[in-house]
Amino acid sequence: MAFSQRLAHAAKLVEARVAVALGGDSAPVRLAEAMRHAALGGGKRFRPFLVLECANLFDVPATAAVHTAAALECVHCYSLVHDDLPAMDNDDLRRGRPTVHKAFDEWTAILAGDGLLTLAFEILASPETHADPAVRADLVLAVARAAGVAGMVGGQCLDLEADKLGVPAAPSLAHVERLQAMKTGALIRFACKAGAILGRAAPEQRSALVDFGERLGRAFQMADDLLDAEGDAATLGKAIGKDAGKATLVSILGVVEAKARLAALEAEALAALAPFGPKADVLREATRFVVERRS
Amino acid sequence: MAFSQRLAHAAKLVEARVAVALGGDSAPVRLAEAMRHAALGGGKRFRPFLVLECANLFDVPATAAVHTAAALECVHCYSLVHDDLPAMDNDDLRRGRPTVHKAFDEWTAILAGDGLLTLAFEILASPETHADPAVRADLVLAVARAAGVAGMVGGQCLDLEADKLGVPAAPSLAHVERLQAMKTGALIRFACKAGAILGRAAPEQRSALVDFGERLGRAFQMADDLLDAEGDAATLGKAIGKDAGKATLVSILGVVEAKARLAALEAEALAALAPFGPKADVLREATRFVVERRS
Repeated sequence: MAFSQRLAHAAKLVEARVAVALGGDSAPVRLAEAMRHAALGGGKRFRPFLVLECANLFDVPATAAVHTAAALECVHCYSLVHDDLPAMDNDDLRRGRPTVHKAFDEWTAILAGDGLLTLAFEILASPETHADPAVRADLVLAVARAAGVAGMVGGQCLDLEADKLGVPAAPSLAHVERLQAMKTGALIRFACKAGAILGRAAPEQRSALVDFGERLGRAFQMADDLLDAEGDAATLGKAIGKDAGKATLVSILGVVEAKARLAALEAEALAALAPFGPKADVLREATRFVVERRS
Repeated sequence: MAFSQRLAHAAKLVEARVAVALGGDSAPVRLAEAMRHAALGGGKRFRPFLVLECANLFDVPATAAVHTAAALECVHCYSLVHDDLPAMDNDDLRRGRPTVHKAFDEWTAILAGDGLLTLAFEILASPETHADPAVRADLVLAVARAAGVAGMVGGQCLDLEADKLGVPAAPSLAHVERLQAMKTGALIRFACKAGAILGRAAPEQRSALVDFGERLGRAFQMADDLLDAEGDAATLGKAIGKDAGKATLVSILGVVEAKARLAALEAEALAALAPFGPKADVLREATRFVVERRS
Protein backbone atom coordinates (compact mmCIF):
# COMPACT_ATOMS: atom_id res chain seq x y z
CA MET A 1 0.00 0.00 0.00
CA ALA A 2 1.36 3.46 -0.85
CA PHE A 3 2.23 5.68 2.11
CA SER A 4 -0.58 8.16 1.52
CA GLN A 5 -3.11 5.30 1.35
CA ARG A 6 -1.71 3.83 4.55
CA LEU A 7 -2.04 7.17 6.29
CA ALA A 8 -5.61 7.58 5.04
CA HIS A 9 -6.47 4.02 6.09
CA ALA A 10 -5.14 4.63 9.60
CA ALA A 11 -7.12 7.87 9.83
CA LYS A 12 -10.28 5.98 8.91
CA LEU A 13 -9.71 3.25 11.50
CA VAL A 14 -9.00 5.74 14.26
CA GLU A 15 -11.85 8.06 13.35
CA ALA A 16 -14.24 5.10 13.44
CA ARG A 17 -13.00 4.17 16.91
CA VAL A 18 -13.31 7.76 18.16
CA ALA A 19 -16.83 7.84 16.71
CA VAL A 20 -17.75 4.74 18.72
CA ALA A 21 -16.32 6.29 21.90
CA LEU A 22 -18.40 9.42 21.26
CA GLY A 23 -21.49 7.49 20.26
CA GLY A 24 -22.93 6.55 23.65
CA ASP A 25 -26.09 8.17 24.98
CA SER A 26 -24.89 8.96 28.49
CA ALA A 27 -23.64 12.47 27.65
CA PRO A 28 -25.94 15.47 27.23
CA VAL A 29 -26.78 15.81 23.52
CA ARG A 30 -25.26 19.29 23.15
CA LEU A 31 -21.97 18.16 24.67
CA ALA A 32 -21.80 15.00 22.57
CA GLU A 33 -22.40 17.03 19.42
CA ALA A 34 -19.68 19.53 20.31
CA MET A 35 -17.21 16.73 20.97
CA ARG A 36 -18.05 15.07 17.67
CA HIS A 37 -17.61 18.41 15.90
CA ALA A 38 -14.17 18.69 17.50
CA ALA A 39 -12.95 15.14 17.01
CA LEU A 40 -14.57 13.90 13.81
CA GLY A 41 -13.84 16.86 11.57
CA GLY A 42 -11.04 15.36 9.51
CA GLY A 43 -7.34 16.02 9.85
CA LYS A 44 -4.38 13.89 8.84
CA ARG A 45 -4.40 11.92 12.12
CA PHE A 46 -0.63 11.75 11.97
CA ARG A 47 -0.11 11.07 15.68
CA PRO A 48 -2.51 8.10 15.73
CA PHE A 49 -0.83 6.82 12.57
CA LEU A 50 2.50 6.79 14.43
CA VAL A 51 0.92 4.77 17.25
CA LEU A 52 -0.35 2.16 14.80
CA GLU A 53 2.92 1.91 12.88
CA CYS A 54 5.12 1.77 15.99
CA ALA A 55 2.81 -0.88 17.46
CA ASN A 56 3.17 -2.83 14.20
CA LEU A 57 6.88 -3.24 14.91
CA PHE A 58 5.91 -5.55 17.78
CA ASP A 59 2.92 -7.23 16.18
CA VAL A 60 0.54 -5.64 18.66
CA PRO A 61 -3.10 -6.66 18.01
CA ALA A 62 -4.87 -4.03 15.95
CA THR A 63 -7.60 -3.42 18.55
CA ALA A 64 -5.12 -2.36 21.25
CA ALA A 65 -3.27 -0.06 18.89
CA VAL A 66 -6.43 1.51 17.48
CA HIS A 67 -7.87 2.17 20.96
CA THR A 68 -4.63 3.79 22.07
CA ALA A 69 -4.42 5.84 18.89
CA ALA A 70 -8.03 6.99 19.36
CA ALA A 71 -7.26 8.09 22.92
CA LEU A 72 -4.26 10.08 21.73
CA GLU A 73 -6.39 11.73 19.06
CA CYS A 74 -8.90 12.75 21.76
CA VAL A 75 -6.05 14.45 23.63
CA HIS A 76 -4.89 16.21 20.47
CA CYS A 77 -8.41 17.39 19.61
CA TYR A 78 -9.09 18.63 23.15
CA SER A 79 -5.92 20.73 22.92
CA LEU A 80 -7.07 22.26 19.64
CA VAL A 81 -10.50 23.14 21.05
CA HIS A 82 -9.00 24.90 24.06
CA ASP A 83 -6.19 26.56 22.05
CA ASP A 84 -8.76 28.02 19.65
CA LEU A 85 -10.74 29.72 22.45
CA PRO A 86 -11.04 33.54 22.42
CA ALA A 87 -8.93 33.78 25.59
CA MET A 88 -6.18 31.74 23.93
CA ASP A 89 -5.44 31.93 20.16
CA ASN A 90 -8.93 33.19 19.25
CA ASP A 91 -9.32 31.24 16.03
CA ASP A 92 -12.63 31.09 14.17
CA LEU A 93 -11.70 28.34 11.75
CA ARG A 94 -10.12 24.93 12.12
CA ARG A 95 -9.71 22.55 9.19
CA GLY A 96 -11.92 24.86 7.16
CA ARG A 97 -14.86 24.61 9.57
CA PRO A 98 -15.99 26.85 12.44
CA THR A 99 -14.12 26.15 15.69
CA VAL A 100 -16.19 24.61 18.49
CA HIS A 101 -16.79 27.90 20.30
CA LYS A 102 -18.00 29.42 17.02
CA ALA A 103 -20.25 26.50 16.10
CA PHE A 104 -21.58 26.32 19.69
CA ASP A 105 -20.32 28.78 22.32
CA GLU A 106 -17.42 29.22 24.71
CA TRP A 107 -18.73 27.27 27.68
CA THR A 108 -19.66 24.34 25.47
CA ALA A 109 -16.16 24.42 23.92
CA ILE A 110 -14.44 24.43 27.32
CA LEU A 111 -16.55 21.47 28.48
CA ALA A 112 -16.11 19.61 25.18
CA GLY A 113 -12.34 19.90 25.60
CA ASP A 114 -12.54 18.76 29.21
CA GLY A 115 -14.73 15.86 28.13
CA LEU A 116 -12.34 14.75 25.36
CA LEU A 117 -9.33 14.81 27.67
CA THR A 118 -11.17 12.77 30.29
CA LEU A 119 -12.45 10.35 27.65
CA ALA A 120 -8.87 9.70 26.51
CA PHE A 121 -8.00 8.38 29.96
CA GLU A 122 -11.20 6.35 30.13
CA ILE A 123 -10.27 4.65 26.85
CA LEU A 124 -6.69 3.94 27.93
CA ALA A 125 -7.74 2.47 31.27
CA SER A 126 -10.46 0.25 29.79
CA PRO A 127 -9.77 -3.50 29.73
CA GLU A 128 -10.89 -3.51 26.07
CA THR A 129 -7.74 -1.56 25.19
CA HIS A 130 -5.30 -4.10 26.58
CA ALA A 131 -5.76 -7.18 28.75
CA ASP A 132 -2.69 -6.38 30.87
CA PRO A 133 -3.45 -3.67 33.46
CA ALA A 134 0.28 -2.86 33.70
CA VAL A 135 0.23 -1.83 30.04
CA ARG A 136 -2.89 0.28 30.60
CA ALA A 137 -1.43 2.02 33.66
CA ASP A 138 1.82 2.65 31.73
CA LEU A 139 -0.08 4.21 28.85
CA VAL A 140 -2.04 6.46 31.19
CA LEU A 141 1.12 7.58 32.97
CA ALA A 142 2.97 8.26 29.73
CA VAL A 143 0.16 10.25 28.12
CA ALA A 144 -0.51 12.21 31.33
CA ARG A 145 3.14 13.25 31.46
CA ALA A 146 3.21 14.11 27.75
CA ALA A 147 0.00 16.14 27.90
CA GLY A 148 0.56 17.79 31.29
CA VAL A 149 2.38 20.82 32.61
CA ALA A 150 5.81 19.39 31.78
CA GLY A 151 4.54 18.67 28.26
CA MET A 152 1.78 19.97 26.04
CA VAL A 153 -0.07 22.21 28.52
CA GLY A 154 3.21 23.68 29.74
CA GLY A 155 4.31 24.37 26.16
CA GLN A 156 1.04 26.13 25.42
CA CYS A 157 1.62 28.27 28.52
CA LEU A 158 5.09 29.28 27.29
CA ASP A 159 3.65 30.05 23.86
CA LEU A 160 0.92 32.28 25.28
CA GLU A 161 3.33 33.99 27.66
CA ALA A 162 5.33 35.00 24.58
CA ASP A 163 2.23 36.06 22.60
CA LYS A 164 0.23 37.84 25.29
CA LEU A 165 2.81 39.02 27.78
CA GLY A 166 5.91 39.34 25.61
CA VAL A 167 7.86 37.08 27.98
CA PRO A 168 10.72 36.54 27.45
CA ALA A 169 11.46 39.73 25.49
CA ALA A 170 14.03 38.06 23.23
CA PRO A 171 13.49 34.27 23.24
CA SER A 172 16.70 32.27 22.90
CA LEU A 173 17.05 29.24 20.66
CA ALA A 174 17.00 27.07 23.80
CA HIS A 175 13.72 28.65 24.90
CA VAL A 176 12.01 28.09 21.56
CA GLU A 177 13.30 24.53 21.42
CA ARG A 178 12.01 23.84 24.93
CA LEU A 179 8.62 25.37 24.09
CA GLN A 180 8.27 23.24 20.97
CA ALA A 181 9.53 20.07 22.63
CA MET A 182 6.77 20.54 25.19
CA LYS A 183 3.95 21.88 23.03
CA THR A 184 4.14 19.57 20.03
CA GLY A 185 7.09 17.26 20.69
CA ALA A 186 5.74 15.54 23.78
CA LEU A 187 2.66 14.01 22.12
CA ILE A 188 4.66 12.87 19.09
CA ARG A 189 7.21 11.20 21.39
CA PHE A 190 4.33 9.57 23.24
CA ALA A 191 2.83 8.30 19.97
CA CYS A 192 6.06 6.43 19.21
CA LYS A 193 6.63 5.26 22.78
CA ALA A 194 3.05 3.95 22.94
CA GLY A 195 3.90 1.30 20.35
CA ALA A 196 6.70 0.05 22.59
CA ILE A 197 4.50 0.08 25.69
CA LEU A 198 1.76 -1.87 23.89
CA GLY A 199 4.33 -4.32 22.56
CA ARG A 200 6.02 -4.73 25.95
CA ALA A 201 9.23 -4.01 24.07
CA ALA A 202 12.69 -4.39 25.59
CA PRO A 203 14.03 -1.20 27.23
CA GLU A 204 16.51 -0.54 24.41
CA GLN A 205 13.74 -0.82 21.82
CA ARG A 206 11.56 1.51 23.83
CA SER A 207 14.32 4.08 24.08
CA ALA A 208 15.09 3.75 20.36
CA LEU A 209 11.46 4.65 19.63
CA VAL A 210 11.53 7.55 22.07
CA ASP A 211 14.68 8.81 20.29
CA PHE A 212 12.95 8.41 16.97
CA GLY A 213 9.88 10.29 18.22
CA GLU A 214 12.03 13.05 19.64
CA ARG A 215 13.84 13.64 16.32
CA LEU A 216 10.63 13.29 14.35
CA GLY A 217 8.85 15.82 16.56
CA ARG A 218 11.66 18.32 16.13
CA ALA A 219 11.72 17.73 12.38
CA PHE A 220 7.93 18.20 12.28
CA GLN A 221 8.23 21.58 13.97
CA MET A 222 11.24 22.69 11.91
CA ALA A 223 9.38 21.81 8.70
CA ASP A 224 6.35 23.71 10.00
CA ASP A 225 8.40 26.81 10.71
CA LEU A 226 10.05 26.58 7.28
CA LEU A 227 6.66 26.23 5.62
CA ASP A 228 5.43 29.26 7.47
CA ALA A 229 8.48 31.28 6.47
CA GLU A 230 8.58 30.23 2.85
CA GLY A 231 5.36 28.46 2.04
CA ASP A 232 2.92 29.26 -0.62
CA ALA A 233 -0.45 30.35 0.73
CA ALA A 234 -2.35 28.34 -1.86
CA THR A 235 -0.54 25.10 -0.96
CA LEU A 236 -0.67 25.60 2.76
CA GLY A 237 -4.29 26.66 2.98
CA LYS A 238 -3.68 29.05 5.83
CA ALA A 239 -2.45 32.59 6.15
CA ILE A 240 1.28 32.76 5.58
CA GLY A 241 3.44 34.79 7.88
CA LYS A 242 0.82 34.45 10.60
CA ASP A 243 3.73 33.95 12.95
CA ALA A 244 5.58 37.01 11.62
CA GLY A 245 7.21 38.76 14.52
CA LYS A 246 7.06 35.61 16.59
CA ALA A 247 10.33 33.88 17.46
CA THR A 248 10.55 30.58 15.59
CA LEU A 249 13.44 28.26 14.86
CA VAL A 250 13.69 29.80 11.39
CA SER A 251 13.60 33.41 12.58
CA ILE A 252 16.44 32.63 14.98
CA LEU A 253 18.53 30.28 12.81
CA GLY A 254 17.78 31.60 9.34
CA VAL A 255 16.43 29.45 6.48
CA VAL A 256 19.75 27.93 5.42
CA GLU A 257 20.74 26.75 8.88
CA ALA A 258 17.18 25.57 9.59
CA LYS A 259 17.24 23.39 6.46
CA ALA A 260 20.62 21.96 7.44
CA ARG A 261 19.28 21.08 10.88
CA LEU A 262 16.18 19.52 9.38
CA ALA A 263 18.37 17.26 7.23
CA ALA A 264 20.39 16.31 10.31
CA LEU A 265 17.23 15.51 12.25
CA GLU A 266 16.02 13.33 9.39
CA ALA A 267 19.28 11.38 9.45
CA GLU A 268 19.09 10.97 13.24
CA ALA A 269 15.50 9.81 13.07
CA LEU A 270 16.39 7.22 10.45
CA ALA A 271 19.38 6.09 12.50
CA ALA A 272 17.13 5.52 15.52
CA LEU A 273 15.05 3.15 13.39
CA ALA A 274 18.03 0.99 12.36
CA PRO A 275 17.45 -1.74 14.98
CA PHE A 276 14.02 -2.47 13.55
CA GLY A 277 15.18 -3.43 10.04
CA PRO A 278 12.75 -3.53 7.12
CA LYS A 279 9.76 -3.68 9.50
CA ALA A 280 10.26 0.05 10.05
CA ASP A 281 10.08 1.01 6.37
CA VAL A 282 6.73 2.72 6.78
CA LEU A 283 8.17 4.80 9.62
CA ARG A 284 11.05 5.74 7.31
CA GLU A 285 8.50 6.93 4.76
CA ALA A 286 6.73 8.82 7.54
CA THR A 287 10.00 10.58 8.31
CA ARG A 288 10.38 11.67 4.70
CA PHE A 289 6.74 12.74 4.67
CA VAL A 290 7.39 15.01 7.65
CA VAL A 291 10.58 16.47 6.24
CA GLU A 292 9.25 17.05 2.74
CA ARG A 293 5.69 18.05 3.47
CA ARG A 294 4.34 21.05 1.67
CA SER A 295 1.11 21.47 3.63
CA MET B 1 -10.14 12.24 67.71
CA ALA B 2 -13.25 14.39 67.29
CA PHE B 3 -14.83 14.38 63.84
CA SER B 4 -13.90 17.97 63.05
CA GLN B 5 -10.29 17.30 64.01
CA ARG B 6 -10.25 14.20 61.85
CA LEU B 7 -11.58 16.16 58.90
CA ALA B 8 -8.98 18.89 59.44
CA HIS B 9 -6.21 16.32 59.78
CA ALA B 10 -7.21 14.64 56.51
CA ALA B 11 -7.30 18.03 54.79
CA LYS B 12 -3.76 18.71 55.97
CA LEU B 13 -2.43 15.35 54.76
CA VAL B 14 -4.05 15.72 51.36
CA GLU B 15 -3.05 19.36 50.91
CA ALA B 16 0.56 18.42 51.72
CA ARG B 17 0.48 15.69 49.08
CA VAL B 18 -1.08 18.01 46.48
CA ALA B 19 1.63 20.56 47.32
CA VAL B 20 4.33 17.97 46.60
CA ALA B 21 2.68 17.08 43.28
CA LEU B 22 2.63 20.78 42.37
CA GLY B 23 6.11 21.43 43.66
CA GLY B 24 8.26 20.15 40.77
CA ASP B 25 10.16 22.56 38.55
CA SER B 26 9.17 21.10 35.18
CA ALA B 27 6.12 23.36 34.72
CA PRO B 28 6.35 27.00 33.62
CA VAL B 29 6.41 29.18 36.76
CA ARG B 30 3.22 31.06 35.90
CA LEU B 31 1.28 27.84 35.38
CA ALA B 32 2.59 26.24 38.56
CA GLU B 33 1.60 29.32 40.56
CA ALA B 34 -1.89 29.34 39.10
CA MET B 35 -2.35 25.66 39.90
CA ARG B 36 -1.17 26.19 43.45
CA HIS B 37 -3.56 29.13 43.79
CA ALA B 38 -6.36 26.83 42.64
CA ALA B 39 -5.53 23.74 44.67
CA LEU B 40 -3.91 24.97 47.87
CA GLY B 41 -6.38 27.65 48.83
CA GLY B 42 -8.16 25.83 51.62
CA GLY B 43 -11.54 24.17 51.49
CA LYS B 44 -12.96 21.38 53.63
CA ARG B 45 -11.48 18.65 51.44
CA PHE B 46 -14.53 16.54 52.11
CA ARG B 47 -14.13 14.29 49.06
CA PRO B 48 -10.52 13.36 49.90
CA PHE B 49 -11.62 12.75 53.49
CA LEU B 50 -14.13 10.20 52.22
CA VAL B 51 -11.38 8.44 50.25
CA LEU B 52 -9.22 8.16 53.36
CA GLU B 53 -12.03 6.96 55.61
CA CYS B 54 -13.38 4.43 53.09
CA ALA B 55 -9.85 3.14 52.53
CA ASN B 56 -9.49 2.79 56.32
CA LEU B 57 -12.27 0.19 56.29
CA PHE B 58 -9.86 -2.12 54.46
CA ASP B 59 -6.65 -1.12 56.23
CA VAL B 60 -5.24 0.38 53.03
CA PRO B 61 -1.74 1.84 53.58
CA ALA B 62 -1.95 5.58 54.19
CA THR B 63 0.29 6.48 51.24
CA ALA B 64 -1.99 4.84 48.69
CA ALA B 65 -5.08 6.48 50.14
CA VAL B 66 -3.49 9.91 50.41
CA HIS B 67 -2.22 9.81 46.82
CA THR B 68 -5.66 8.82 45.56
CA ALA B 69 -7.33 11.48 47.67
CA ALA B 70 -4.89 14.09 46.33
CA ALA B 71 -5.69 13.08 42.76
CA LEU B 72 -9.41 13.41 43.44
CA GLU B 73 -8.87 16.85 44.94
CA CYS B 74 -7.01 17.89 41.77
CA VAL B 75 -10.07 16.86 39.75
CA HIS B 76 -12.38 18.79 42.08
CA CYS B 77 -10.19 21.92 41.97
CA TYR B 78 -9.88 21.81 38.17
CA SER B 79 -13.66 21.71 37.94
CA LEU B 80 -13.96 24.78 40.18
CA VAL B 81 -11.39 26.74 38.12
CA HIS B 82 -13.23 26.03 34.88
CA ASP B 83 -16.70 26.53 36.40
CA ASP B 84 -15.66 29.96 37.69
CA LEU B 85 -14.60 31.19 34.21
CA PRO B 86 -16.42 34.19 32.69
CA ALA B 87 -17.91 31.97 29.97
CA MET B 88 -19.30 29.63 32.65
CA ASP B 89 -20.48 30.85 36.10
CA ASN B 90 -18.37 34.04 35.97
CA ASP B 91 -17.39 34.08 39.64
CA ASP B 92 -14.79 36.51 40.98
CA LEU B 93 -14.37 34.92 44.38
CA ARG B 94 -13.79 31.39 45.61
CA ARG B 95 -13.18 30.57 49.26
CA GLY B 96 -12.86 34.29 49.92
CA ARG B 97 -9.98 34.75 47.45
CA PRO B 98 -9.91 35.87 43.81
CA THR B 99 -10.68 33.07 41.37
CA VAL B 100 -7.79 31.95 39.17
CA HIS B 101 -8.86 33.97 36.14
CA LYS B 102 -9.08 37.06 38.38
CA ALA B 103 -5.73 36.48 40.09
CA PHE B 104 -4.09 35.63 36.73
CA ASP B 105 -6.13 35.74 33.53
CA GLU B 106 -8.50 33.56 31.52
CA TRP B 107 -5.99 31.65 29.44
CA THR B 108 -3.91 30.85 32.49
CA ALA B 109 -7.03 29.63 34.30
CA ILE B 110 -8.05 27.37 31.42
CA LEU B 111 -4.56 25.85 31.27
CA ALA B 112 -4.31 25.54 35.06
CA GLY B 113 -7.55 23.54 35.03
CA ASP B 114 -6.33 21.37 32.17
CA GLY B 115 -3.06 20.83 34.03
CA LEU B 116 -4.79 19.82 37.28
CA LEU B 117 -7.04 17.31 35.52
CA THR B 118 -4.06 15.77 33.71
CA LEU B 119 -2.02 15.71 36.93
CA ALA B 120 -4.78 13.74 38.66
CA PHE B 121 -4.37 10.92 36.15
CA GLU B 122 -0.58 11.09 36.41
CA ILE B 123 -0.84 10.62 40.18
CA LEU B 124 -3.30 7.73 39.92
CA ALA B 125 -1.21 5.88 37.32
CA SER B 126 2.07 6.30 39.22
CA PRO B 127 3.52 3.16 40.83
CA GLU B 128 3.99 5.20 44.04
CA THR B 129 0.22 5.31 44.44
CA HIS B 130 -0.26 1.54 44.48
CA ALA B 131 2.06 -1.36 43.68
CA ASP B 132 -0.67 -3.27 41.81
CA PRO B 133 -1.19 -1.87 38.28
CA ALA B 134 -4.68 -3.40 38.20
CA VAL B 135 -5.65 -1.15 41.12
CA ARG B 136 -4.14 1.90 39.38
CA ALA B 137 -5.92 1.17 36.10
CA ASP B 138 -9.19 0.64 38.00
CA LEU B 139 -8.82 3.98 39.78
CA VAL B 140 -8.13 5.78 36.51
CA LEU B 141 -11.14 4.19 34.86
CA ALA B 142 -13.45 4.97 37.77
CA VAL B 143 -12.39 8.60 38.10
CA ALA B 144 -12.50 9.15 34.32
CA ARG B 145 -16.07 7.88 34.25
CA ALA B 146 -17.06 9.96 37.28
CA ALA B 147 -15.49 13.15 35.93
CA GLY B 148 -16.42 12.73 32.28
CA VAL B 149 -19.42 13.45 30.10
CA ALA B 150 -21.60 10.87 31.85
CA GLY B 151 -20.58 12.41 35.18
CA MET B 152 -19.28 15.76 36.34
CA VAL B 153 -18.64 17.43 32.97
CA GLY B 154 -22.01 16.24 31.70
CA GLY B 155 -23.73 17.59 34.82
CA GLN B 156 -22.06 20.96 34.38
CA CYS B 157 -23.33 21.00 30.79
CA LEU B 158 -26.92 20.35 31.93
CA ASP B 159 -26.56 23.06 34.58
CA LEU B 160 -25.32 25.63 32.06
CA GLU B 161 -27.96 24.64 29.53
CA ALA B 162 -30.55 25.54 32.17
CA ASP B 163 -28.79 28.78 33.17
CA LYS B 164 -27.76 30.11 29.78
CA LEU B 165 -30.23 28.60 27.36
CA GLY B 166 -33.26 28.02 29.59
CA VAL B 167 -33.36 24.36 28.58
CA PRO B 168 -35.52 22.60 29.61
CA ALA B 169 -38.09 25.34 30.22
CA ALA B 170 -39.61 23.59 33.25
CA PRO B 171 -37.11 21.08 34.68
CA SER B 172 -38.74 18.00 36.16
CA LEU B 173 -37.67 16.43 39.45
CA ALA B 174 -36.05 13.63 37.45
CA HIS B 175 -34.05 16.15 35.41
CA VAL B 176 -32.73 17.99 38.47
CA GLU B 177 -31.88 14.69 40.16
CA ARG B 178 -30.00 13.50 37.08
CA LEU B 179 -28.12 16.80 36.82
CA GLN B 180 -27.05 16.66 40.46
CA ALA B 181 -26.17 12.96 40.37
CA MET B 182 -23.82 13.80 37.51
CA LYS B 183 -22.47 17.17 38.59
CA THR B 184 -21.74 16.55 42.27
CA GLY B 185 -22.86 12.97 42.95
CA ALA B 186 -20.42 11.21 40.64
CA LEU B 187 -17.24 12.40 42.37
CA ILE B 188 -18.66 11.67 45.84
CA ARG B 189 -19.59 8.17 44.72
CA PHE B 190 -16.08 7.77 43.32
CA ALA B 191 -14.55 8.94 46.61
CA CYS B 192 -16.31 6.11 48.45
CA LYS B 193 -15.70 3.53 45.74
CA ALA B 194 -11.99 4.42 45.65
CA GLY B 195 -11.57 3.02 49.16
CA ALA B 196 -12.97 -0.31 47.97
CA ILE B 197 -10.76 -0.32 44.86
CA LEU B 198 -7.66 0.44 46.92
CA GLY B 199 -8.64 -2.24 49.43
CA ARG B 200 -9.40 -4.81 46.71
CA ALA B 201 -12.68 -5.27 48.53
CA ALA B 202 -15.15 -8.03 47.75
CA PRO B 203 -17.80 -7.07 45.16
CA GLU B 204 -20.57 -6.81 47.77
CA GLN B 205 -18.44 -4.48 49.90
CA ARG B 206 -17.65 -2.37 46.86
CA SER B 207 -21.30 -2.07 45.97
CA ALA B 208 -22.21 -1.26 49.58
CA LEU B 209 -19.78 1.68 49.44
CA VAL B 210 -21.12 2.81 46.08
CA ASP B 211 -24.64 2.74 47.60
CA PHE B 212 -23.39 4.71 50.57
CA GLY B 213 -21.70 7.27 48.29
CA GLU B 214 -24.81 7.58 46.17
CA ARG B 215 -27.04 8.35 49.18
CA LEU B 216 -24.43 10.61 50.74
CA GLY B 217 -24.05 12.59 47.50
CA ARG B 218 -27.80 13.08 47.24
CA ALA B 219 -28.00 14.09 50.91
CA PHE B 220 -25.13 16.53 50.35
CA GLN B 221 -26.98 18.20 47.51
CA MET B 222 -30.35 18.21 49.32
CA ALA B 223 -28.73 19.83 52.35
CA ASP B 224 -27.09 22.38 50.05
CA ASP B 225 -30.38 23.27 48.42
CA LEU B 226 -32.07 23.56 51.85
CA LEU B 227 -29.26 25.80 53.07
CA ASP B 228 -29.66 27.97 50.04
CA ALA B 229 -33.42 28.20 50.52
CA GLU B 230 -33.40 28.80 54.27
CA GLY B 231 -29.85 29.53 55.30
CA ASP B 232 -28.59 32.50 57.14
CA ALA B 233 -26.22 34.62 55.06
CA ALA B 234 -23.86 35.15 57.98
CA THR B 235 -23.50 31.42 58.65
CA LEU B 236 -23.20 30.40 55.03
CA GLY B 237 -20.75 33.11 53.97
CA LYS B 238 -22.21 33.41 50.52
CA ALA B 239 -25.11 35.22 48.97
CA ILE B 240 -28.37 33.53 49.89
CA GLY B 241 -30.95 32.95 47.24
CA LYS B 242 -28.23 33.03 44.57
CA ASP B 243 -30.08 30.17 42.97
CA ALA B 244 -33.43 31.95 43.20
CA GLY B 245 -35.39 31.23 40.05
CA LYS B 246 -33.30 28.16 39.41
CA ALA B 247 -34.97 24.79 39.72
CA THR B 248 -33.60 22.96 42.75
CA LEU B 249 -34.85 19.96 44.68
CA VAL B 250 -36.32 22.34 47.25
CA SER B 251 -38.07 24.58 44.73
CA ILE B 252 -39.69 21.51 43.20
CA LEU B 253 -40.42 19.50 46.35
CA GLY B 254 -40.93 22.26 48.91
CA VAL B 255 -39.02 22.52 52.20
CA VAL B 256 -41.09 20.01 54.17
CA GLU B 257 -40.82 17.23 51.59
CA ALA B 258 -37.13 18.02 51.00
CA LYS B 259 -36.41 17.60 54.71
CA ALA B 260 -38.31 14.32 54.82
CA ARG B 261 -36.29 13.04 51.87
CA LEU B 262 -33.05 14.18 53.47
CA ALA B 263 -33.91 12.15 56.58
CA ALA B 264 -34.69 9.13 54.41
CA LEU B 265 -31.37 9.49 52.57
CA GLU B 266 -29.54 9.67 55.89
CA ALA B 267 -31.20 6.44 57.00
CA GLU B 268 -30.35 4.74 53.71
CA ALA B 269 -26.73 5.90 53.85
CA LEU B 270 -26.39 4.53 57.39
CA ALA B 271 -28.02 1.26 56.33
CA ALA B 272 -25.47 0.86 53.55
CA LEU B 273 -22.71 1.07 56.16
CA ALA B 274 -24.16 -1.73 58.31
CA PRO B 275 -21.86 -4.48 56.94
CA PHE B 276 -18.78 -2.59 58.11
CA GLY B 277 -19.69 -2.54 61.81
CA PRO B 278 -17.96 -0.15 64.21
CA LYS B 279 -15.09 0.43 61.75
CA ALA B 280 -17.48 2.69 59.83
CA ASP B 281 -18.29 4.95 62.78
CA VAL B 282 -16.38 7.89 61.30
CA LEU B 283 -18.37 7.53 58.08
CA ARG B 284 -21.55 7.57 60.18
CA GLU B 285 -20.39 10.83 61.70
CA ALA B 286 -19.60 12.10 58.21
CA THR B 287 -23.18 11.33 57.21
CA ARG B 288 -24.56 13.35 60.14
CA PHE B 289 -22.09 16.12 59.27
CA VAL B 290 -23.50 16.28 55.75
CA VAL B 291 -27.14 16.18 56.86
CA GLU B 292 -26.78 18.69 59.67
CA ARG B 293 -24.29 21.10 58.17
CA ARG B 294 -25.04 24.76 58.44
CA SER B 295 -22.31 26.03 56.14
